[in-house]
Amino acid sequence: MSLAQLALELGAELRLAPGVDAAHEISGLSTLQDGKPDQLTFLANPNYRRFLKTTSAGAVLVTAEFADGCPVSALCVDNPYLAFAKASALFNTAPLVEVGVHPSAVIHPDAEVDPCASVAAGAVVEAFAKIGPRASVGANCFVGEGSTLGEGSCLYAGAILHHGCQVGRDAIIHSHAVIGADGFGFALHQREWIKIYQLGGVQVGDEVEVGANTCVDRGALGDTVIGRGVKIDNLVQIAHNVQIGDYSAIAACTGIAGSAIVGKHCTLGGSSRIAGHVTIADGCQVTANTFVTKSIDSPGVYSGGLPFADSQSWRRNAVRFSQLDKMARRLKDLEKQLAMLSCTKDE
Amino acid sequence: MSLAQLALELGAELRLAPGVDAAHEISGLSTLQDGKPDQLTFLANPNYRRFLKTTSAGAVLVTAEFADGCPVSALCVDNPYLAFAKASALFNTAPLVEVGVHPSAVIHPDAEVDPCASVAAGAVVEAFAKIGPRASVGANCFVGEGSTLGEGSCLYAGAILHHGCQVGRDAIIHSHAVIGADGFGFALHQREWIKIYQLGGVQVGDEVEVGANTCVDRGALGDTVIGRGVKIDNLVQIAHNVQIGDYSAIAACTGIAGSAIVGKHCTLGGSSRIAGHVTIADGCQVTANTFVTKSIDSPGVYSGGLPFADSQSWRRNAVRFSQLDKMARRLKDLEKQLAMLSCTKDE
Amino acid sequence: MSLAQLALELGAELRLAPGVDAAHEISGLSTLQDGKPDQLTFLANPNYRRFLKTTSAGAVLVTAEFADGCPVSALCVDNPYLAFAKASALFNTAPLVEVGVHPSAVIHPDAEVDPCASVAAGAVVEAFAKIGPRASVGANCFVGEGSTLGEGSCLYAGAILHHGCQVGRDAIIHSHAVIGADGFGFALHQREWIKIYQLGGVQVGDEVEVGANTCVDRGALGDTVIGRGVKIDNLVQIAHNVQIGDYSAIAACTGIAGSAIVGKHCTLGGSSRIAGHVTIADGCQVTANTFVTKSIDSPGVYSGGLPFADSQSWRRNAVRFSQLDKMARRLKDLEKQLAMLSCTKDE
Repeated sequence: MSLAQLALELGAELRLAPGVDAAHEISGLSTLQDGKPDQLTFLANPNYRRFLKTTSAGAVLVTAEFADGCPVSALCVDNPYLAFAKASALFNTAPLVEVGVHPSAVIHPDAEVDPCASVAAGAVVEAFAKIGPRASVGANCFVGEGSTLGEGSCLYAGAILHHGCQVGRDAIIHSHAVIGADGFGFALHQREWIKIYQLGGVQVGDEVEVGANTCVDRGALGDTVIGRGVKIDNLVQIAHNVQIGDYSAIAACTGIAGSAIVGKHCTLGGSSRIAGHVTIADGCQVTANTFVTKSIDSPGVYSGGLPFADSQSWRRNAVRFSQLDKMARRLKDLEKQLAMLSCTKDE
Repeated sequence: MSLAQLALELGAELRLAPGVDAAHEISGLSTLQDGKPDQLTFLANPNYRRFLKTTSAGAVLVTAEFADGCPVSALCVDNPYLAFAKASALFNTAPLVEVGVHPSAVIHPDAEVDPCASVAAGAVVEAFAKIGPRASVGANCFVGEGSTLGEGSCLYAGAILHHGCQVGRDAIIHSHAVIGADGFGFALHQREWIKIYQLGGVQVGDEVEVGANTCVDRGALGDTVIGRGVKIDNLVQIAHNVQIGDYSAIAACTGIAGSAIVGKHCTLGGSSRIAGHVTIADGCQVTANTFVTKSIDSPGVYSGGLPFADSQSWRRNAVRFSQLDKMARRLKDLEKQLAMLSCTKDE
Repeated sequence: MSLAQLALELGAELRLAPGVDAAHEISGLSTLQDGKPDQLTFLANPNYRRFLKTTSAGAVLVTAEFADGCPVSALCVDNPYLAFAKASALFNTAPLVEVGVHPSAVIHPDAEVDPCASVAAGAVVEAFAKIGPRASVGANCFVGEGSTLGEGSCLYAGAILHHGCQVGRDAIIHSHAVIGADGFGFALHQREWIKIYQLGGVQVGDEVEVGANTCVDRGALGDTVIGRGVKIDNLVQIAHNVQIGDYSAIAACTGIAGSAIVGKHCTLGGSSRIAGHVTIADGCQVTANTFVTKSIDSPGVYSGGLPFADSQSWRRNAVRFSQLDKMARRLKDLEKQLAMLSCTKDE
């Protein structure tokens, strides 16, 4: 793709370096440090500005502000990171999916597979399931009875969509994600656990991404709901009847317990945990490794956990944690005693 | 199902609302708030009592105590939550499994599949494996050499039971659970890791449930053992040679390290972690996000972790954690000084 | 296998117990406590020395130091645990893999499968993938376009190797591990997430082990790299562009965020978490449940997290954590007041 074409595709203003032609070919993306003459790179984080001067990339996506300091051709845009995201789609190397149903796939006669959909080898599609136009079901995937994979959505190899679950348009479900396994519900009876069958389903909105080995459980009564444009990383647990608001993003290893409600435009850092039945307001940012034990009413940044240290120092301090309440009481005592002492002295 | 039938099935006393017939049909379950005239609901948690007065459900499972305040027909039982669990089985919407072996399944000639079992498309069953009566092996599952899936037990799509692993009766293994992968064992030799082959297996008791994407590793020597009626949620790690006592329940994202022993009737909250080789007594309750670093000898409730806060407050306090030992010493110093001061003053 | 053969295989000095013949047969491995006359066991941890006197095993792997106290035949070695690891390979009970391609596997005509490789039932191997000699692809595995599984390496049932990922020699990828799913990268645009296509791949070194349900994401630009001899347990998240140095070991439930660099010969305990972009020096040991939030420059042992307690004590102390900064200020105030008081008294 020529620099001229790239400028057109990305809506960028092209400022050619001396001696470079607008027909100069770009064949891939790289970083400022590693960029080669046939690669496009970007400067989004000002911390990396020092790499700009010495880059050997063919062109750099920059804001106008930094374009002057660019030793190679510049593609000026308002948001270089966004332009880089768009460029990543142009140079995507993922293999194309073949339209049609692979002969080894097992499609129930009552399933509806759009003629423009793809179903790969070993996939199983059950009765009354619907695979929309341009949707693709990867190798060895499973689509349960009555479930829907919307137009342009994709199940990667091994992903599972259990019965009665709906995935909207242009969603991506990564490998071995499990959508619609039973929620974890039991009634205790004479010290044994009696299963509560999980009668709800899962609704996954348009443009959602669900990471590899992530679980989204079906609702007990009513559905578990993942809003529009939500992005979920790998190895995340979304329990039954959770609701995730539109455009929220959830990093890896996070667990969200049953019936929790996460607002719109929230971000949950990696390994964060949300207790059951709590509600998190729109626009909250929960930093990595935080355990949210109660509802959050207003947008803001929330944190938990503790800093690490070398083990010796850490152990010295950690052992004091179990004395913390006593320390607080001793502190109060001291304050009282000192106050009394000051009084008597003043007399 | 009529109200009369439901009362019979659930062992409930039917108190019909004025004008309602015992033949009134119930077609599903719902909550007090959302219940419609053809739905059954329940009041188990007294906090929800306020929703009883205005429910539009067809009937409510209640204790006799609350039946009088019920504006619709009541099904009186001792334990409404248990009755609700039983009702959930009556209204379960999960698709029925077809008896027989799907032509695309690959069954080793030396495997034994009961004629009343089900093996779905793409499943692989190896030599000397046994699939019991009414057991079902889901789509693309794998059952290794010499493993047993007991009567009435179920492997959901993509679940894996490696060689030499035994699953008892009426167990449920959810999608992509991996039973019997190698335990994580290595000997260090000249700074390289030498694999210790894992020669044991896994024993999963009757009526156990293992969640989606959960791992139960095979033992190094001897077996990893999951007791009768144990319920394990999604994304849980059970390392080699762990033993889980009967009727314990383990919530999602929990990790139990090698050779740990969890007693009977324990509950482990979500994201709890149990260190290797520790023993937890029968009847312990470990709350969510707790790291159990040493053995627990007596039943009780155990907790760990820290409350979260807005990031600014949290940071102010977290930074003090690394000064905690020094603070404790300064506190002690102050106490000494003050004591001396008081003495001299008294002289 | 006779004791004499075992001594030969393990490079051990055989000290026969009275009346025992070097032809005595050993058929398996066990622990000191449970060992039977046809089993070999070992004494590696001095804490278990007390079990030596009463063992009924056929033979014990011991250092020369402890051989005298051994009531049964001894196999003297320098490192009994290492010898035990070697013995575990001799008695490994895992089923042998059949060479050749199962008729139900789907191999793209442009894939290269070595005639000495094994591809099991339901596996899918895409175009330009290469399966090396003695390599094995388990049941229902997926190998993407252009990926390589090196000589002697093994994908267990359900493992996934996406396109453009390279696995070296003698590596083991456990069931449902996902190598090469998309890294979690998005640009924010008008409060929506725009996908950054992940153009890099994954390089997995020789003799690496990747646990069940573990994810190793593909790089955004450039590759995610797992060094030689690295051992990764189950349910671990390795994000895009992470680099793990040779011979490091990572226990279960650990999460490593994007672009983090873990040195060589490091060990990360279970449920540890490494923040994005941090660098950990060679030879570091991070204990279980530690969140590494910034780079570590020198080898050592590092810890985080907090001890657990009975819930009542824990709650008393945990609530004080949110007062910690105030406590520190009050402590400082007291010190000042006391200093003043001492001064005035001295006057």
